[in-house]
Amino acid sequence: MQLQELIEQIQQKKSMLCVGLDVDLEKIPKHLLELDDPIFEFNKAIIEATQEYCIAYKPNIAFYEAYGLKGWQALQKTINYINEHYPEQFTIADAKRGDIGNTSKMYAKAFFEDLNFDSVTVAPYMGKDSIEPFLQFKNKHAIMLGLTSNEGAKDFQFLENKGTLLFESVLKTSRTWVNSRQLMYVVGATKSSYLKKIRQILPDSFLLIPGVGAQGGNLKEVCEHGLNSTYGLIINSTRGIIYASQEEDFAIQAAYNAKALQEQMEPYIT
Amino acid sequence: MQLQELIEQIQQKKSMLCVGLDVDLEKIPKHLLELDDPIFEFNKAIIEATQEYCIAYKPNIAFYEAYGLKGWQALQKTINYINEHYPEQFTIADAKRGDIGNTSKMYAKAFFEDLNFDSVTVAPYMGKDSIEPFLQFKNKHAIMLGLTSNEGAKDFQFLENKGTLLFESVLKTSRTWVNSRQLMYVVGATKSSYLKKIRQILPDSFLLIPGVGAQGGNLKEVCEHGLNSTYGLIINSTRGIIYASQEEDFAIQAAYNAKALQEQMEPYIT
Repeated sequence: MQLQELIEQIQQKKSMLCVGLDVDLEKIPKHLLELDDPIFEFNKAIIEATQEYCIAYKPNIAFYEAYGLKGWQALQKTINYINEHYPEQFTIADAKRGDIGNTSKMYAKAFFEDLNFDSVTVAPYMGKDSIEPFLQFKNKHAIMLGLTSNEGAKDFQFLENKGTLLFESVLKTSRTWVNSRQLMYVVGATKSSYLKKIRQILPDSFLLIPGVGAQGGNLKEVCEHGLNSTYGLIINSTRGIIYASQEEDFAIQAAYNAKALQEQMEPYIT
Repeated sequence: MQLQELIEQIQQKKSMLCVGLDVDLEKIPKHLLELDDPIFEFNKAIIEATQEYCIAYKPNIAFYEAYGLKGWQALQKTINYINEHYPEQFTIADAKRGDIGNTSKMYAKAFFEDLNFDSVTVAPYMGKDSIEPFLQFKNKHAIMLGLTSNEGAKDFQFLENKGTLLFESVLKTSRTWVNSRQLMYVVGATKSSYLKKIRQILPDSFLLIPGVGAQGGNLKEVCEHGLNSTYGLIINSTRGIIYASQEEDFAIQAAYNAKALQEQMEPYIT
């Protein structure tokens, strides 16, 4: 997908909402477990219920790998369903991959060609040649971990080198890589006090904000400090939407919560 | 697998050799492509030919994901084959995973429970709570990226904080995590000048040395500076073994090259 299409979708839907599809068989409504492919049936219902309020879907690949072959099958059916019925949706394979060049290229092929996602999340530790292979695919995007919102983020991301924190070095250095315009960044919403700083380094990039909702991010702060001239934000919510109810009304409740988040975003989209 | 079993295997076979199973359909002998599952058939032949000279197998997961469902099926058959026929082999899922706690746990389940690998490689950027979930499985191991041998390693791994390089901070900090005795570390062989420093930080840990051979690591240097009282080294070779020949004699040539590496290791194992 071209960035312009994503921007137009945000404008039209007045939404920057991304719905995380992290399906845990222990958390989905019990009546689905009797079906042939409960993971896919759950996703299909969630997608139908939320697609008018969101602009992106983000399956976390771990949740599919944990179910082995059946999980991969459900992932494949899910991405195919989105691409067929809602091709305007921006799709994110939340995989946090990264390896030496030759191997990163295989991951890129897996997610961009075999599964046909628009983007994949990647981890920066191995540097330039572990990320650039993901940037060689036309109209595809790599979303690199910048600042994460988990407790362990403090272990290394805030180490300082000559006045620059590690996550700042990661963001700055990545701008010099080939096709860096195809990079987006994961920025943990709970550190929205850092958003200003990050926007100085990355005025034009899209930021993926994981975890408005369960992970405690504050939508108002994120919008006030994170928006740029092309919006530049994809704001994820997972548990607050897909597990809004564990009963038969789960899709209706998911729609309700997605709509509520979309309405909170609307005033910021002009 | 318990560490003691790995150590005994090294002793018995006089080998620290790990064979990488990174199967690229464009590189395997053409006659295999006519079979139902060429990836598995290739792996099976390589395993049969090399198992007496090596103590571990390491499929890089990217190479399987790139082939979608068929790839996962081949991976599953490969690990099942090793576990059934050569349970003494230490198995490494080279996946370089890492995510927030809840999600890392799903990856750990995928590789330790669903696929039954002995270990999985993990990436450190997200810190403690992204790695600890991998350390909660009895007799399973996480092998964390420390210092890698690729060009991009220089981008971040050598950033200095109060006199300590990032990769050193990563190694030191990880020692404080819960069940850190189940941690091993990826250390790029081409930086064997750093091995001394790393052994000071990690006197007792196993190090996975990727790329003696194609990646240019020097076996002699690695052994001289990397060995500890329980050997402490798993030395990987991939292309030099599995692609030793692309003709019908590929397995024989693989055995030949694996044996040659084993013989180079033998003098260091007493």
